[in-house]
Amino acid sequence: MAVGLFAPEASALYRVAGVRLGVAQAGIRKPGRQDLLVMVLPEGAEIAGIFTRNRFCAAPVQLCREHLQAADPVRALVVNTGNANAGTGAAGLEDARATCAEVARLLGLRPSQVLPFSTGVIMEPLPLARVLAGIPACIEDLREDNWLAAAQAIMTTDTVPKAASCRISIGGTPITVTGIAKGAGMIHPDMATLLAFIATDAAVERNALQDLLADVADQSFNSVTVDGDTSTNDSFMLVASGAAGNTPILDARSDAGRMLAEALAQVAVELAQAIVRDGEGATKFITIQVESGRTRDECRRIAFAIAHSPLVKTAFFASDPNLGRILAAIGYAGIGDLDVARIDLYLDEVKVVSGGGRDPGYQEAQGQRVMQRSEITVRVVLGRGSENATVWTCDLSHDYVTINAEYRT
Amino acid sequence: MAVGLFAPEASALYRVAGVRLGVAQAGIRKPGRQDLLVMVLPEGAEIAGIFTRNRFCAAPVQLCREHLQAADPVRALVVNTGNANAGTGAAGLEDARATCAEVARLLGLRPSQVLPFSTGVIMEPLPLARVLAGIPACIEDLREDNWLAAAQAIMTTDTVPKAASCRISIGGTPITVTGIAKGAGMIHPDMATLLAFIATDAAVERNALQDLLADVADQSFNSVTVDGDTSTNDSFMLVASGAAGNTPILDARSDAGRMLAEALAQVAVELAQAIVRDGEGATKFITIQVESGRTRDECRRIAFAIAHSPLVKTAFFASDPNLGRILAAIGYAGIGDLDVARIDLYLDEVKVVSGGGRDPGYQEAQGQRVMQRSEITVRVVLGRGSENATVWTCDLSHDYVTINAEYRT
Repeated sequence: MAVGLFAPEASALYRVAGVRLGVAQAGIRKPGRQDLLVMVLPEGAEIAGIFTRNRFCAAPVQLCREHLQAADPVRALVVNTGNANAGTGAAGLEDARATCAEVARLLGLRPSQVLPFSTGVIMEPLPLARVLAGIPACIEDLREDNWLAAAQAIMTTDTVPKAASCRISIGGTPITVTGIAKGAGMIHPDMATLLAFIATDAAVERNALQDLLADVADQSFNSVTVDGDTSTNDSFMLVASGAAGNTPILDARSDAGRMLAEALAQVAVELAQAIVRDGEGATKFITIQVESGRTRDECRRIAFAIAHSPLVKTAFFASDPNLGRILAAIGYAGIGDLDVARIDLYLDEVKVVSGGGRDPGYQEAQGQRVMQRSEITVRVVLGRGSENATVWTCDLSHDYVTINAEYRT
Repeated sequence: MAVGLFAPEASALYRVAGVRLGVAQAGIRKPGRQDLLVMVLPEGAEIAGIFTRNRFCAAPVQLCREHLQAADPVRALVVNTGNANAGTGAAGLEDARATCAEVARLLGLRPSQVLPFSTGVIMEPLPLARVLAGIPACIEDLREDNWLAAAQAIMTTDTVPKAASCRISIGGTPITVTGIAKGAGMIHPDMATLLAFIATDAAVERNALQDLLADVADQSFNSVTVDGDTSTNDSFMLVASGAAGNTPILDARSDAGRMLAEALAQVAVELAQAIVRDGEGATKFITIQVESGRTRDECRRIAFAIAHSPLVKTAFFASDPNLGRILAAIGYAGIGDLDVARIDLYLDEVKVVSGGGRDPGYQEAQGQRVMQRSEITVRVVLGRGSENATVWTCDLSHDYVTINAEYRT
């Protein structure tokens, strides 16, 4: 029951020259679905990645970090759904190595040129034999126009595949950006999405690519939350194939770098919002804007306090303008010197709170009217500075409990 | 559907000499229930209080702080349920003042000798006329053996009144401790309970009483969580009537002070656990013990990360040993130098994780067996120090969503 979210058309997803994708049914957790993806990059492609800050990071995340530090250029990614290969100790790391080795063997690469990714249930052994048996079919399936199938192959409790694409021109050269992501549960900033892969055919130098990645992640995946849980497997990878033939971008802050950043952010924000719209059990898509704070960090802390509050989230689910719960969340966000008497609160166009108390003109019926909507903006004006932050979240419904209570059945 | 929790017998609640309680039906939110309480203290009684750290603290909390700082000894408390008088601005403060003034007038006190408390819906005006009209009936009802009625009169979504009592002997003098609390939702450390009032007939000097209060709160109300929301109204008050005739306790660290602390903690922990057992929608009572940490603070952070995780809580609700979710929560608790390879995890008597990975002897059926129980202990052994912490919480069920979605209807 995703909120205002529809599966993308395969034809709306532009190919990224040089980047090929192949999927297969490996039967990792459930039969009869695509659950394995191999992505192959052309020679000369650059890649940058950021990963979960969870100390219990999964085996594939550990191996990604190791392979990214190796001298060999990365040429392939392998992604399975159904099993996270997390909390699996040394055996899990061996399984991830074996997966990379098999992809490398079939593609004529070295294992360190392959990055592994897993998503699904934690603390269960990866069914390695089935993963390995599925890889040849992925490789047979490799083609550039396979982004939608790839998006489908990495879903877990997602109800809609998540993919987005855009084209721009930089210095007269057409540049394409296409990405896929999966999310739904265990969504939290740092990182917000379990897995996201965005590719462009632009030529970008590696350090510039890493800067672009950090900037784009901050605006997109690190600004969404479903349930406040940070996964063991979160990974966001950015690929630049270089096939477009533009003058290579050496600096993320250059004109060309900023133009590319905008295109990347457009795709990343669409994917990040899609994750929230398809949040487990979501019936409402909620934008939380915190304005005129002293620092961007304090604005984000307040926005996330609101976004994480189970009481706020259930009130949205119920379409109940029990808006004092929003004030309570602002109050416990941990801003020690916050003067609540300066705070205004809006629900879409309705002013609810003035100067820390109920606005004299506010009537319950106005709040009730806004709460019926499926997309709602909460705007908090702190009145103490010039910094802002925006966070996207969803409500907490019966279906969230059902989905997570029955996830493994 | 409280977990292993039954309403106390009125006869099991010992009177605290000199402390009288009276209740009434004021019709504040719903007719036909006791919703107003007045507690009167004898001359010479001491009182100490700690309050929510929420910046949006309610009007009565603001007034409590003001009156506690005044020179006049506190002689009465007035508590209403049904309306929190929070997020109500200057008008709310006036309403709280008017409530104190009326209690003071009827008892022949000064308004600053009265402390007000409110719990219920946030950001709605207090129905002051109904509160004032109910006060005389409370005062007519004042008596020492009224603790159970008082516990009932402060309930909101609680399904069971919460009261506990014990007797000890200090230096040959019999000492009584009796307390009541209400909780159910918006429960979080600092403070954990919306409202708790514990009284003893011991004679305790004011500073020692404040020290005892802080110590007891840390062990009890600040070690429980239902949903991670910190209320605008949390208040924990400790009264020492002095009627027992013991040698006054001047130092919380003295022998007598420590004996009294133990009795107070026994009552406070029982009340705090009762709040979790009656957590909104709770079907399971979960004890989280984190052991052998470097600091008590890091143990508490890990325990609360587990206790707050919606994914962990829904797994308990489902009796599903999806225990990787516990590892994930440990990993994102924010302990930067945590070596997960040293961590062991137990579910009651079953060892689930050894050295950061699934224990070789662990079988799903063992976890399944424990998960069927209604009371479960999660034990995390960090293996990096000698500090410990214990936190109590409950699961996240469909009923939590229902209760909070429909709270105001």
